[in-house]
Amino acid sequence: DDIMDKDTIRHGHETIHHKWDTSTAILAGDGIYTLALLVLNSIDSNEKEISKCFNEVTLDICEGQALDKEFENLDNITEDLYFEMIKKKTGSLIAASAIIPLIYAKEDIKIIDLFRTFGECLGKGFQIHDDLLEITSNSDTMGKSLNSDIFEGKQTIMFIKANNRYQKRWTDLIAQSSKATIKENISSFLYETGIIDEAVHIAKS
Amino acid sequence: DDIMDKDTIRHGHETIHHKWDTSTAILAGDGIYTLALLVLNSIDSNEKEISKCFNEVTLDICEGQALDKEFENLDNITEDLYFEMIKKKTGSLIAASAIIPLIYAKEDIKIIDLFRTFGECLGKGFQIHDDLLEITSNSDTMGKSLNSDIFEGKQTIMFIKANNRYQKRWTDLIAQSSKATIKENISSFLYETGIIDEAVHIAKS
Repeated sequence: DDIMDKDTIRHGHETIHHKWDTSTAILAGDGIYTLALLVLNSIDSNEKEISKCFNEVTLDICEGQALDKEFENLDNITEDLYFEMIKKKTGSLIAASAIIPLIYAKEDIKIIDLFRTFGECLGKGFQIHDDLLEITSNSDTMGKSLNSDIFEGKQTIMFIKANNRYQKRWTDLIAQSSKATIKENISSFLYETGIIDEAVHIAKS
Repeated sequence: DDIMDKDTIRHGHETIHHKWDTSTAILAGDGIYTLALLVLNSIDSNEKEISKCFNEVTLDICEGQALDKEFENLDNITEDLYFEMIKKKTGSLIAASAIIPLIYAKEDIKIIDLFRTFGECLGKGFQIHDDLLEITSNSDTMGKSLNSDIFEGKQTIMFIKANNRYQKRWTDLIAQSSKATIKENISSFLYETGIIDEAVHIAKS
């Protein structure tokens, strides 16, 4: 995602690019990813379809991540566009995990499509829940990247709702908040307007 | 290789991570790489063996690149270790290009092994030739990254020969050269000691 500085802040422990450096981290990722592909190559049933599914999902994730970057600092993102983005970025990964065993078992395409939908919904729900935790969590490890998310213009379903419904109040709120107060100001605003409750409802549904 | 700053210097034109940013460059690379895998998935003859070959080579390249990084600033690298590293980093890529058509054609394993050796040797020759050009070329586009190679401790067959045979003279030469004079000093030294000629001979052989 944001390889240069956010992993350590978010997860509160050392990552490869901090302990070594960025090129070592990229190299380790490439190597582990390739080991996964080699495991798929060695599967003895429907290997071609499994590899194809895995590679298609990787492309979806790249596209989702590209959309996520493209959406930064755009203020005309609709909820539908946002859901399309997280379906690709997060939903497709969980969907692949759910359907690859079924492809292996040569299951009927209707069953596979059901499991794909299940995985996509679970992934989208997870993404929204993760965004919610950034705002509602009081712990040290969560919530710390909210500031950088906001200042980078990163979109979440809550920011999109706030911006689309209360554009002037929302942009004023961000412009007038200091780094020290922005998290509390945003949190209060999203609670008062009912946007938090709506996001919780969407994540659950 | 060295994703942060050397591409533009070496090639003299804009790259994705300069024109956009590092995460866009990584994402574009991941996407294009995945498209290549999807093309391989769609091949209609021996697809499983082709994908396996491609993934094994990717792992070789990752390992070669990891060795290259590991060798930086080590002064006890033998020529054999160096050749093993460039065989993985560069030779395996050309070897894969040479043998994948033969795997597609279900060619005999003995023929495939011959073409693999051909590709590995061509790749190793290319790598040494590229290192030679850094020293012998007078053009603006080549040779500019020599300084950064030396200061990063990057290994080439010539530096390994120089260090293993003339350790004190070689380290003194580098320590006593300024950024402005180091290229000429190194170049003269490698010509005088016959190391350039040896490297040319190795690349051709």
